[in-house]
Amino acid sequence: MNPEFVVYGYFRSSAAFRVRIALNLKGIEPEWKFVHLLKDGGHQHTGSYKSVNPQELIPTLVHDGHTIGQSLAIMEYLDEIKPEPALLPKLPTDRARVRQIAYAIACDIHPVNNLRVLLHLRDEFGASEEKRAAWQRHWISLGFGAIETLLAGSRQTGKYCHGDAPTLADICLVPQLANARRVNLDLSSYPTILRIERTALEHPAFAAALPAAQPDAE
Amino acid sequence: MNPEFVVYGYFRSSAAFRVRIALNLKGIEPEWKFVHLLKDGGHQHTGSYKSVNPQELIPTLVHDGHTIGQSLAIMEYLDEIKPEPALLPKLPTDRARVRQIAYAIACDIHPVNNLRVLLHLRDEFGASEEKRAAWQRHWISLGFGAIETLLAGSRQTGKYCHGDAPTLADICLVPQLANARRVNLDLSSYPTILRIERTALEHPAFAAALPAAQPDAE
Repeated sequence: MNPEFVVYGYFRSSAAFRVRIALNLKGIEPEWKFVHLLKDGGHQHTGSYKSVNPQELIPTLVHDGHTIGQSLAIMEYLDEIKPEPALLPKLPTDRARVRQIAYAIACDIHPVNNLRVLLHLRDEFGASEEKRAAWQRHWISLGFGAIETLLAGSRQTGKYCHGDAPTLADICLVPQLANARRVNLDLSSYPTILRIERTALEHPAFAAALPAAQPDAE
Repeated sequence: MNPEFVVYGYFRSSAAFRVRIALNLKGIEPEWKFVHLLKDGGHQHTGSYKSVNPQELIPTLVHDGHTIGQSLAIMEYLDEIKPEPALLPKLPTDRARVRQIAYAIACDIHPVNNLRVLLHLRDEFGASEEKRAAWQRHWISLGFGAIETLLAGSRQTGKYCHGDAPTLADICLVPQLANARRVNLDLSSYPTILRIERTALEHPAFAAALPAAQPDAE
């Protein structure tokens, strides 16, 4: 354990899943604090967690007296303080390509399908469980369609989204696939995405980050 | 004009607004290609634009033979190829703070309120214009509440979100305020956010990027 790193997370959160992969790749074993997102209306809304992260979202990293929310900010930070192995390639154009794929997931798919959005859909629009699942499939399939096109159409795609080593793009992609399966999205239109997922899950940093492998898994 | 930079945008898109501010700060005057997001069901869905950006979202930057989607990826790229003036501070902990604020907007507010989400709410849940405005106010006020807490509670907040020079955080914040006003959100609970906006709008790079100042404004 590197007790100077403390991370607040939850086994099923795909944003926490990303940070687990990044930490595993960097060889950092933090102290985990588990925040149950469903119990008692969600422990992320308690006063004690709110003082850690006013957004009442996970994950949060505490390191060296600094508290950092937002999984992407945490991962860029980890990459800056511990550059090897790199989560981003060297060239600016390559970094932009990786970030574009990462953000297509982390901005345009994941937040629209986040727990709080689904609960709001239920409460404000009476959306049934099936309607909420259809909502999620809609945004995942739109995003995956675009990402499949970007990946399949580029010679820069290798074993992973960019070349033959994992980057931020793969770190965002793999947890999003877990969410896609949870709502029974048909993934057959995304062969490149599925091929990359298979590669990633053979990597111990990805496999050890799977939700079912976490101490707080249910 | 720096004709080696081509940007696809739309005056009212807050993601394009961000990129306009970043380009102005960097002193880059690109060739603009306007993509009307509403006409004929949205020109972002035409085949010609889809070949530029398979996500069918704006903005997109084309530079040096490379095509980059996602406003945050574009801005990190601009900061890497033209480091001065910097859009991010130097220290990793400071960069993380700026990115956390930027992503709290660019991931957790903006995509949930994006045009395509509002249209989907209308089409799938019969959400009226007023219900759609209330949806937007809900997510903006949640996000702004957290950001106000982060800003007001930190000595690192200066004239801008981080110190006395504009960063990615301000670049994301100012366009989001324009959206907030469009849906008549009461902003009186966010004095720090409003103070920073006033500072930013005195800066020519922000003022010149306002939607009303664009050639395609209506």
